[in-house]
Amino acid sequence: MQQLYRFQTAAHIVAGRNSIQALADNLHFTGIHDVKSVLIITQPSIKALGVIDDIVGQLSVKGIKADINTNVLPEPTVGNIEEVFQCIGNEHYDVLIGIGGGSVLDTTKIISVLKTNNNSIRELLGTDLVAKPGLPTILIPTTSGTGAEVTPNAIVTLPDEELKVGIVSKYLLPKVVIIDPMLTLGLPKPITAATGMDAFTHSLESYISNKANPLSDMFALESIRLISASIVEAYQNGSSADAREKMLFGSMYGGMALTCAGTAAVHALAYPLGGKFKISHGVANSMLLPHVMEFNMDAITDRLSQVAEPMGIQIRGSSKAEAAGRVVDRIVEWTKILEIPQDLRSFGVEENDVPALAVSASKVTRLLNNNPKTLTLDDMEAIYRKLLS
Amino acid sequence: MQQLYRFQTAAHIVAGRNSIQALADNLHFTGIHDVKSVLIITQPSIKALGVIDDIVGQLSVKGIKADINTNVLPEPTVGNIEEVFQCIGNEHYDVLIGIGGGSVLDTTKIISVLKTNNNSIRELLGTDLVAKPGLPTILIPTTSGTGAEVTPNAIVTLPDEELKVGIVSKYLLPKVVIIDPMLTLGLPKPITAATGMDAFTHSLESYISNKANPLSDMFALESIRLISASIVEAYQNGSSADAREKMLFGSMYGGMALTCAGTAAVHALAYPLGGKFKISHGVANSMLLPHVMEFNMDAITDRLSQVAEPMGIQIRGSSKAEAAGRVVDRIVEWTKILEIPQDLRSFGVEENDVPALAVSASKVTRLLNNNPKTLTLDDMEAIYRKLLS
Repeated sequence: MQQLYRFQTAAHIVAGRNSIQALADNLHFTGIHDVKSVLIITQPSIKALGVIDDIVGQLSVKGIKADINTNVLPEPTVGNIEEVFQCIGNEHYDVLIGIGGGSVLDTTKIISVLKTNNNSIRELLGTDLVAKPGLPTILIPTTSGTGAEVTPNAIVTLPDEELKVGIVSKYLLPKVVIIDPMLTLGLPKPITAATGMDAFTHSLESYISNKANPLSDMFALESIRLISASIVEAYQNGSSADAREKMLFGSMYGGMALTCAGTAAVHALAYPLGGKFKISHGVANSMLLPHVMEFNMDAITDRLSQVAEPMGIQIRGSSKAEAAGRVVDRIVEWTKILEIPQDLRSFGVEENDVPALAVSASKVTRLLNNNPKTLTLDDMEAIYRKLLS
Repeated sequence: MQQLYRFQTAAHIVAGRNSIQALADNLHFTGIHDVKSVLIITQPSIKALGVIDDIVGQLSVKGIKADINTNVLPEPTVGNIEEVFQCIGNEHYDVLIGIGGGSVLDTTKIISVLKTNNNSIRELLGTDLVAKPGLPTILIPTTSGTGAEVTPNAIVTLPDEELKVGIVSKYLLPKVVIIDPMLTLGLPKPITAATGMDAFTHSLESYISNKANPLSDMFALESIRLISASIVEAYQNGSSADAREKMLFGSMYGGMALTCAGTAAVHALAYPLGGKFKISHGVANSMLLPHVMEFNMDAITDRLSQVAEPMGIQIRGSSKAEAAGRVVDRIVEWTKILEIPQDLRSFGVEENDVPALAVSASKVTRLLNNNPKTLTLDDMEAIYRKLLS
């Protein structure tokens, strides 16, 4: 029997507290030895923190011109990203620097390949449809989070189809990643909660994925260990550098795990909520996570019991079923402590939207195929309805 | 305070049992889309296994010409590698494929950069002295082992100076790595033992290194976990695919850990034994490991106690000192089970060689600086003498 697992990640990862201060000194790891101009792609909330000014200062000392684009919208549509791209026009840049949440990082990845491939975004949707490497990118996450800094994926919203879909290509991987937990100290509580649970979802779904393997398992378990040890602390005491550091590494390892094993039904069910009701990726995943795990339970008891110990749950003397049950209990407990919304109505979803949501989710076969248990349309409707009761 | 950790690895890792059969299908991950010719660099013992014929067959189906060079010597000198290089001459290859133990992989890495940089090997010795990327490489380890398939390092012997020294450059990292445990099933017992303990040494030294960090710790602990669970089984029952798979992943993670945190005094003391007495890298490291850990003990009790659980050692109710002691006890126990040599005399080392060995080791400051405890010349002599008693 032939087995085939794959792992690929950012070419060079620089990590540590205040490592952002070393950005200019690490430019050559992009492969460009004489960088003259960069474009910084970010969002207004990051610009307001002052970190962009620090970066521009570092670059200017080295005589490097830096333009700034803050036009990225959360959960961007194809149109939003094309606007950012057109706004750049024919301006040449040696390197693109994306600093922000997953939406900024994904936008930066897409713009880098739009600059070098003569394609529209829609032509690149799918797997391995990008023909040429993009401009070199440096990605700097400010949420813990999507793990987008280390994945070959970028997600966009198709507003007409009310869908979220992905571009998957090795050319989306960055040349340099900077993992600086100090950039996440000021994250608001609801974003800490939703993005943190999103990261945990990446790792847990990778661990139970049909494509889980010895490579993805290491990243998934370490991510689960780190996030479990810090998510409540990061939420309750956002200025804890220690908790923020664990969350940011946990999020990055989650991205590595999902690159290797893929996510599953939680993500498939989340995309229609983002596509049609603009529920952010992190919130949608966190709302769905406990319910999908309960649905999956009989198919994943063994695997779920193995994450109890990394989650810090005492299981001495427990059966596998008991241990697995406690894992779901702990997730439900977090949902309450982290005040994750549990009512889809507050986002405008009504009972009669459910069948269409299920039909939409059923089309995300790329991810549903990774789920250890097959979901019928009825199963999917039942899961959505748990969030309407 | 600014912290700075770095991680970089092979661009694309393909892993799994019999994954070697997918080599030709993964050539495009080298970045070359129309590969026409490759050079396979290997050693006679691998050629004899038939796997090279399989690879040539895969390539020939795709119309790719493959030359084979089996002239790599174990623990090669600068002269050996230059001979392989000259033997290749001006022949053009799109990709180099290295398949073998650490010596083959390091030779392949060096030849790839010799082909594109107008330098002698001696001019490249040191850190970051390679100016340009080399030919793309595919590295396929057949020992579990050096982890050389994922490190930016290559070690060569300087026979006149009786030293082993390194080239360190990001350009030594391969484009593709293939991790196929089935290639290691036939490894002879002494090589399984020495290379396995070498891999364990990489991880343990990375974990206690002054440069240990959250990135290296994950790889080090997973490597320690996998190797501890399989080294005795792989030695006693070499045809166990499960044990061989754990060893090969453990070895690769060891390479990732040492890339990130560096090795320390075991390696510094091992190099002169290789340089002057031709003791293989794996054997030298395995001989020294328990003695250097005993020497380090008071400085690493805490860290060493943390590896007891990943090693599968019961430590419930033990103090940290007891747990750390049991880690060293376990290593000593393995040394006996795996029949690691413990007498330097059998390699021609005499009591009066010791002072010169210590002087030689004291020059490996790149690694000694990573050691949590400073070693005087007297300390180093005392450690060598433990292997002469």
